[in-house]
Amino acid sequence: MITEESFGSLSVIHSKGTLDWAYPTFILASTAAAMDKKVELFFTFYGLKAVLKSTDGLKVSPLGNPGMVIHSPIGPEWFKKVDLNSVLPGLVWTLPGMSMLATWGFKKTLELQGQVSIKELRALCLELGVKMTVCQMTMEMMGYREEDFIDGVEFAGAATYFANTPQVQTLYI
Amino acid sequence: MITEESFGSLSVIHSKGTLDWAYPTFILASTAAAMDKKVELFFTFYGLKAVLKSTDGLKVSPLGNPGMVIHSPIGPEWFKKVDLNSVLPGLVWTLPGMSMLATWGFKKTLELQGQVSIKELRALCLELGVKMTVCQMTMEMMGYREEDFIDGVEFAGAATYFANTPQVQTLYI
Amino acid sequence: MITEESFGSLSVIHSKGTLDWAYPTFILASTAAAMDKKVELFFTFYGLKAVLKSTDGLKVSPLGNPGMVIHSPIGPEWFKKVDLNSVLPGLVWTLPGMSMLATWGFKKTLELQGQVSIKELRALCLELGVKMTVCQMTMEMMGYREEDFIDGVEFAGAATYFANTPQVQTLYI
Repeated sequence: MITEESFGSLSVIHSKGTLDWAYPTFILASTAAAMDKKVELFFTFYGLKAVLKSTDGLKVSPLGNPGMVIHSPIGPEWFKKVDLNSVLPGLVWTLPGMSMLATWGFKKTLELQGQVSIKELRALCLELGVKMTVCQMTMEMMGYREEDFIDGVEFAGAATYFANTPQVQTLYI
Repeated sequence: MITEESFGSLSVIHSKGTLDWAYPTFILASTAAAMDKKVELFFTFYGLKAVLKSTDGLKVSPLGNPGMVIHSPIGPEWFKKVDLNSVLPGLVWTLPGMSMLATWGFKKTLELQGQVSIKELRALCLELGVKMTVCQMTMEMMGYREEDFIDGVEFAGAATYFANTPQVQTLYI
Repeated sequence: MITEESFGSLSVIHSKGTLDWAYPTFILASTAAAMDKKVELFFTFYGLKAVLKSTDGLKVSPLGNPGMVIHSPIGPEWFKKVDLNSVLPGLVWTLPGMSMLATWGFKKTLELQGQVSIKELRALCLELGVKMTVCQMTMEMMGYREEDFIDGVEFAGAATYFANTPQVQTLYI
């Protein structure tokens, strides 16, 4: 008999609104679900962007993240090896269009590595039975409507999330 | 009999020093406390700013967070609907005074939505019995003194935090 | 008898690629290991930088982190007390060389406070028996090779991490 006791569970509060941080959540969720764990995702604060129908709002920015490596997906071989984030001053990334360029480069690099898109990843999660809930308070505060989100998500508050997930939780915020 | 076993617990290590990230911690903490869970917050690294008497140091910045939606709380209706963070290049947010402006806009928007201030939220948490501890090592490193913090917080190290919280912890940093 | 049951465990997914965020992970890990807890660290996404042989790629940036306090470690006493991050506009931190300067200031300040370097901290963790695993998928995606990482780390995927850590996990991403 497959029970929660035997395979465990993963419960994630997803709060980030960028493209790069959507990946850990959906990758961990799909991995855990594939291991027959019960997976519960709660999207709150900036994190709502990860489950909007349109993923156009999901971007990356190297500003304030010197840990981000940015390789150009196009150009000569020596140029593709250069970490643009470490050689270019932050100023460059503040110029008009650079956020779009960084996001394009990020997507292109993932694609070349055979990584699937967020749209495909979250569809896979839903298929694997991952339960997704959008924080109702955040939704109202940010002016979104239920129809802005992908099919299959539910809407509830933090209290409902706590009621459906382990009684003992430890988090790092 | 009300025991920890019956209602569970929430233990949070709060490490962020911005205004926006103070909200998830205090909202989750007050929600869990209202559900009769035992709640323990440990403030460390940049997170100390969230429990200083003065909240003037708590700011927001859209730099590096393309997920932040910034609506002007004032102006004509069509203008209030524009996400300033997605239409303005990062450069704008690096100019003198823009961090102050973004913080003002963030506070104003929350206020218009009926959300309470961090001062009120953390007072509510204390009232509900949430236990707050400031990381002593960080305090000494950053040159703060005990009297800089709100009444009701305690001072201890990470070892004490681990001793008072669940023996098995899983974190995402 | 010393068992995992009696002292518990700490399992951390480390995803950040900056110098400052490497500290909480290694400090919490070494603290927990010193308390005889079983500690497991999984380095993924930007977090791989924290276990590279060379720590030169670990930097800090105040951009987008108004919570970061930056004191000059040199200069007259009154000047050392000024929080440069709150008085200087973001623009300054986007100029060439400023990320290097902020990182230098961060390291210098830690050194003056008697805090050890990341190299020493992670060596201490390994000595205390902390188990470190590098996410294989991220490694391949970012073009790193096993020999780029410090001795003592292992290489595996998220599924292996979940198999080796508590069956019930709650995370905040």
